[in-house]
Amino acid sequence: MQPIIFLLPIWLILTMTSTSSNADNPLTTQSVLEASSASDWRTPKPENLLYLILESNQVVFEIAPEFAPAHIANIRELVADRYFDNLSIIRSQDNYVVQWGDPAAGSDKAKSLGNAKVELEPEFFRKREGLDIVPLSSRDAYAEEVGFVDGFPVASDTERSWLTHCYGMLGVGRDYAATSGNGAELYAVTGHAPRHLDRNVTLIGRVLKGIEHLSSLPRGTGELGFYEDEKEYVKIKAIRFGHEIPEQDRLAIEVMRTDTDTFAKYVQSRTFRLHEWFVDPAGKIELCNVSVPARDKD
Amino acid sequence: MQPIIFLLPIWLILTMTSTSSNADNPLTTQSVLEASSASDWRTPKPENLLYLILESNQVVFEIAPEFAPAHIANIRELVADRYFDNLSIIRSQDNYVVQWGDPAAGSDKAKSLGNAKVELEPEFFRKREGLDIVPLSSRDAYAEEVGFVDGFPVASDTERSWLTHCYGMLGVGRDYAATSGNGAELYAVTGHAPRHLDRNVTLIGRVLKGIEHLSSLPRGTGELGFYEDEKEYVKIKAIRFGHEIPEQDRLAIEVMRTDTDTFAKYVQSRTFRLHEWFVDPAGKIELCNVSVPARDKD
Repeated sequence: MQPIIFLLPIWLILTMTSTSSNADNPLTTQSVLEASSASDWRTPKPENLLYLILESNQVVFEIAPEFAPAHIANIRELVADRYFDNLSIIRSQDNYVVQWGDPAAGSDKAKSLGNAKVELEPEFFRKREGLDIVPLSSRDAYAEEVGFVDGFPVASDTERSWLTHCYGMLGVGRDYAATSGNGAELYAVTGHAPRHLDRNVTLIGRVLKGIEHLSSLPRGTGELGFYEDEKEYVKIKAIRFGHEIPEQDRLAIEVMRTDTDTFAKYVQSRTFRLHEWFVDPAGKIELCNVSVPARDKD
Repeated sequence: MQPIIFLLPIWLILTMTSTSSNADNPLTTQSVLEASSASDWRTPKPENLLYLILESNQVVFEIAPEFAPAHIANIRELVADRYFDNLSIIRSQDNYVVQWGDPAAGSDKAKSLGNAKVELEPEFFRKREGLDIVPLSSRDAYAEEVGFVDGFPVASDTERSWLTHCYGMLGVGRDYAATSGNGAELYAVTGHAPRHLDRNVTLIGRVLKGIEHLSSLPRGTGELGFYEDEKEYVKIKAIRFGHEIPEQDRLAIEVMRTDTDTFAKYVQSRTFRLHEWFVDPAGKIELCNVSVPARDKD
C-alpha cells in the first residue's frame, strides 16, 4: 500500500498520527480504510496463497486460478514434489524482475520436474466471458479497458482478458517457445510495470506481502540481471501453498474486496488525493497505481 | 535501459550474443542502437550532471534547467557550500522513493542552508510555450499529451508542461507548504511511476547512471520508509556538479537525442518489439516505459 503523506522531515512524521486522520473528509485513503467493515475484506483460501520461503524472510503471493489453471496445477505438482526446495533466486534486474528456479535448468544437472509437465499451452489470456470485471474508468496506454477481478488487475479487449504486469505480479518464465513456460521458473515484477509483457507470458498472481525482500535484492551484474557468481544466489528454503503450512505458521491476511462500494471509494481516494499535502490532485489514476490493499488480520 | 530478451535459462544467455542481432530487421532495439551515428547522441554539459557520491558507488543525474531554474540555482548554492557532504540517505520506501538530506532537518541541530534560500516559489510546471516537445503518440492515464524534451519525459495540457514522475526521476522534497521545497531534501523515484505527484512537487532531472544503487537499498521500516535507526543511514560523501569534479573522474556519458529519426525508430522498436521472443507485441508504449538510452562514451 502506498502512503498518504509524501515528503516530510522526521520531526513532522513523529507528530503526524494525530493530524493525518481527517474526520471531516470521508474520502481520504485513511478514512476509507477506517470506515471499512469486515464484509469489505475477504480472506484468501490457504491453498491460493503461495509462500516463497527464504532464509530470513518470506514473500506471500495470492494466485489467480481463473486466469492460469493449467500453470497453477503444474506448479502444485512441483510444490508437492518439493521441486523448489533448495533452489535459488538467480536474477535481479533493475526496474524489471526478480526470477527464481533451478540455476542448472537446461543443463545435464537440471533437477527433474517429476510428475509436472515440461511444456504447457500458454495461458497468456483467457476468454473475457464469464469474468466479473470491476471496471476502472481510466485511460490505459495498452488496453481499451482495464479493471479488477477479485483483487487482480486485468485488461481486456472485446474477446479476451488478461492479468497485467503491475508491480508485484507473479509470472511464469519461458524461453522462445510460447509453450516453454511450465512454472519451474517464476518471476515477480519489481519495477515500473512492464506492460509490453502482457499477453506474452503467463501471469499467475500478485504479491500480498513481502515484495520488498525481492525488490531490494542486489542487482545481478550479468546480462539481464543474472547473478554471475553463485555465491550471490539467494537460497530458497521452500515454496509451499498455505494449506501445506502448519496452521500456526500461516499468514493471517485479508484483502480488500474489489466488488464493493468501499473499493470504489478507495479508488476515488487514490484518484483525488484530498489529503492536504496535495495542491493539484490528478483526478485520474493509472491501473497499476491503484494497488488493492491487503492487511494483517487482527 | 531495458533488455530485449526476457526470461531465459543461463545456458541460453551464454549463446545469445550471436543471435540477438538481427540484420534483416532494422527495428529491433539493438539494431537501432547499432545503426545510430555519433550525431544521434549528445554529451550533457558537465555543469548539468549532478553526482551523488556515496561510500562505494555513485549515482549520476542530468538536471533540466528549463523546468526548474530557481530550484536548480538553489541546489547549486547548497552544493557550492558543501551542504550535502556527510549528510545521509534517510528513507527508502518500497515501490516509491529514496530520499536524502539532513536527518536533523527541522530540529535545532539542522545544518545551515548557508546562502541558499529556505523557501522557493514552486516549479511544479512551466509554460508550455517555448518548449520543443517531441510528442509520443500514446494514451496517457494522467495527461492529454506526453512526450520528450531533451531526453526528459514531459506531460502537457494546453497551457502548461511538466516533468513526469517516471522511474529514476530526481525531485525536491517538500512539506505541506508548496513553497517549502528548497533542494536540501532530494528524492529519486525507485518504483512504479507515482504520477499522482506530478504538478505537486518540483522535479529537476533524471538518472543517467547508477539508480540501482538506490533502488536496491534496504527499505526503511519506519513510516513512509524512513530508516528508524541512524545506523541504517547511507552516508553521502558529497554531491557535486560535473564541472567541480577533476576531469579524470568525470563520467564520460552520452544520451540519445530525442529530436532525431533514430529516437523515433528507438521508440518504434520498444513499441512493436519485433524480437523473436514476443508473440503478441503491444504496438503501444506508455511514457515511462520508453526510457531514453544513455551509454558510456568510448
